[in-house]
Amino acid sequence: MGWGDLGVFGEPSKETPNLDQMAAEGMLFLDFYTASPLCSPSRAALLTGRLPVRNGFYTTNGHARNAYTPQDIVGGIPDSELLLPELLKKAGYTNKIIGKWHLGHQPQFHPLRHGFDEWFGSPNCHFGPYDSRERPNIPVYRDWDMVGRYYEDFKIDLKTGEANLTQFYLQEALDFISKQQASQQPFFLYWAIDATHAPVYASKQFLGTSQRGLYGDAVREIDDSIGKILKHLQQLGISENTFVFFTSDNGAALISAPRQGGSNGPFLCGKQTTFEGGMREPAIAWWPGHIPAGGVSHQLGSVMDLFSTSLSLAGVQPPSDRQIDGIDLLPVMLQGKLIDRPIFYYRGNELMAVRAGLYKAHYWTWSNSWEEHSKGIDFCPGQSVAGVTTHTQEEHTYLPLLFHLGRDPGEKYPLSFASEEYQRAVESISGLVQQHKASLVPGQPQLNVCDQAVM
Amino acid sequence: MGWGDLGVFGEPSKETPNLDQMAAEGMLFLDFYTASPLCSPSRAALLTGRLPVRNGFYTTNGHARNAYTPQDIVGGIPDSELLLPELLKKAGYTNKIIGKWHLGHQPQFHPLRHGFDEWFGSPNCHFGPYDSRERPNIPVYRDWDMVGRYYEDFKIDLKTGEANLTQFYLQEALDFISKQQASQQPFFLYWAIDATHAPVYASKQFLGTSQRGLYGDAVREIDDSIGKILKHLQQLGISENTFVFFTSDNGAALISAPRQGGSNGPFLCGKQTTFEGGMREPAIAWWPGHIPAGGVSHQLGSVMDLFSTSLSLAGVQPPSDRQIDGIDLLPVMLQGKLIDRPIFYYRGNELMAVRAGLYKAHYWTWSNSWEEHSKGIDFCPGQSVAGVTTHTQEEHTYLPLLFHLGRDPGEKYPLSFASEEYQRAVESISGLVQQHKASLVPGQPQLNVCDQAVM
Repeated sequence: MGWGDLGVFGEPSKETPNLDQMAAEGMLFLDFYTASPLCSPSRAALLTGRLPVRNGFYTTNGHARNAYTPQDIVGGIPDSELLLPELLKKAGYTNKIIGKWHLGHQPQFHPLRHGFDEWFGSPNCHFGPYDSRERPNIPVYRDWDMVGRYYEDFKIDLKTGEANLTQFYLQEALDFISKQQASQQPFFLYWAIDATHAPVYASKQFLGTSQRGLYGDAVREIDDSIGKILKHLQQLGISENTFVFFTSDNGAALISAPRQGGSNGPFLCGKQTTFEGGMREPAIAWWPGHIPAGGVSHQLGSVMDLFSTSLSLAGVQPPSDRQIDGIDLLPVMLQGKLIDRPIFYYRGNELMAVRAGLYKAHYWTWSNSWEEHSKGIDFCPGQSVAGVTTHTQEEHTYLPLLFHLGRDPGEKYPLSFASEEYQRAVESISGLVQQHKASLVPGQPQLNVCDQAVM
Repeated sequence: MGWGDLGVFGEPSKETPNLDQMAAEGMLFLDFYTASPLCSPSRAALLTGRLPVRNGFYTTNGHARNAYTPQDIVGGIPDSELLLPELLKKAGYTNKIIGKWHLGHQPQFHPLRHGFDEWFGSPNCHFGPYDSRERPNIPVYRDWDMVGRYYEDFKIDLKTGEANLTQFYLQEALDFISKQQASQQPFFLYWAIDATHAPVYASKQFLGTSQRGLYGDAVREIDDSIGKILKHLQQLGISENTFVFFTSDNGAALISAPRQGGSNGPFLCGKQTTFEGGMREPAIAWWPGHIPAGGVSHQLGSVMDLFSTSLSLAGVQPPSDRQIDGIDLLPVMLQGKLIDRPIFYYRGNELMAVRAGLYKAHYWTWSNSWEEHSKGIDFCPGQSVAGVTTHTQEEHTYLPLLFHLGRDPGEKYPLSFASEEYQRAVESISGLVQQHKASLVPGQPQLNVCDQAVM
């Protein structure tokens, strides 16, 4: 999903009443970011509280190249990484992942080996269908066991867009919550649905219900499901004891628009890029009785903060033997504080850009290659900013492109290099970059090698 | 202002708490339009309920050419047009205009000759400063009398952006409302402020208070003033007896961005164009106790509807001797009805596009000329959609470009001419166009002739 996909974030069809209501009862984060413009690295960062370049979810096969976990990927989340559910176990939490795992397919990367107690979902996206000889259809798991495959046992009709997966995921969530409430056990639920990822799908009852076409149908089903989950928490009487956060793992995939792609609102480009459209996300925190209703925060936030914040909520110390990039957002949510911290925009192994306050400095610009672009692959359809949405990798290390995201959220008007404002802001950001790079210990890259045998 | 300039419409700095609150207490219109992508014609349409091509606020000097009322314009609102305040007089209303008139500068066009009882403001925008020899500074009126000139008696500091005009306009509004309430007289107030029009200005207390720079400061002052006006109505105990509507006369002027230009959210291009960014507007209706709080409407609305709706509220019949383009929105606001009606997008003397339901057909496309564009005048900065944002006037009369604004609010993906969906939608829209053109009686164009003597 993109920043602009929710009514409360200005989507003009305004079809997300439940998420809008969640925002009205909770706190809206307007400046919240993923840790990568692509799915696998962003999810690895969410669960480890660490940048992909630290936790290994990147590739060195090419410069500034996005990578994820295709079916034949050899790597996955290293044992040396400590995942949020592993740490929450120490506080007696039962942990469940529902939906897409995306942190590796080999047995050693199974979510139940990394802190989760239960799983219903898949190691990968619902790509396909495949011939299941050269390339198998993607498996679906219940806990340790493969219980079927997409397109075979779990139907997805690419023609109509019909699939019941979100309903399965919803029921799993409601059941898990009921069970935990009945047993008075604290729980962590990672509800990792993927209906808005191409091939986009929705259940029959939602097909054709959106002004926005199939993508909007998928959003409406997710919105409806979130409403049901929040209502369930309320009906069980545990809403004031349950922290809920909604966000997405990358900006809307404009390459799939209009049928399968969402909206990044007023921002530049989308998924795969380090412009705002690729990494700024819708984000809502909800915890009735604790987080003030209707709050709005300009805190620069990151999916990695959910790691630190969740540990803080559970009273568990974060690991002290490694760099954690997430920060605890409780002071932001409970006391309205603003914590000074930068946002680092990585693409693969390269630090492309840095945001500090309202300034964003681009050290590298790239949308995609001319070769890809000429084949019709476009990460910025209808958008083109000279010298910014470049089709060659352009280095600006010594004279970064600087934008003021308040006056220019669309990254269209680089500040004049000669201006005092430029000098002041770049000096300050460059200090942050030096500090960051000096202390950076890159992890072993996990996304370099594929092997058919993995499948 | 543009559609994307309010927090409630997804402006990422979310700095319009009063307008957002007005929406929470009233009804948000997501599909509301001006009658022209430029100021004068749009305001003439608002006050007459008629398209500019009917009321004369257009030019035939060039094809599809936008025109307004510069200082030396000879024309203005014809006596044959019936303005909203003229008609409201029949029901005992006292009518006041505060701010920009923009319907002609010669004595016969004075607002007090066209139904208004009071005026504080100017016949034109606050352009300048001028030398006051070749070209005088623009005058400011109180009722019949000129009381000074911009830059001379009413200061605007172009360097800092400081001007107190919005505060003057606010005080005028509060005083007028108090006076009317004291005398128990019904009133119509046209609060036509212009702080977001370049040269953008704000009072000292608002300068530097926005994340968005000077433009945002101006928006914040307007937002603050509207909050004070609504509160005043409440404190006087007449809020449940006063209908308030907020909207703008054209999309944000992206040519003036980023310092002096606003945001059209996810829409294409801006002021001067017939793409959504040029004519779709923020719109909020407020009438506590009557319009349900927190309502959202997808009614296709127009500034011209304010003419018909206001007459309906006052119990005055609209004139029956002429075509009125506005419709009465009361059933929409009070009973949640949706009224089927098209939106016509004119640029000067040409019908450029038509919206019916979620479909929009472009019969002509044009942003601006290559000549202007090469001089850096850009109505679509950072945006470029091949075959759509054209720099030559392109006719598509026989094969209109068709967009589905639900799936593609940004007008990036024209539907395939060969598709059944295209055939069906275009057939239906073409019927509306034929009907419209067959019955159209264009008014005498008022914006063709300039003469220095007028100044």
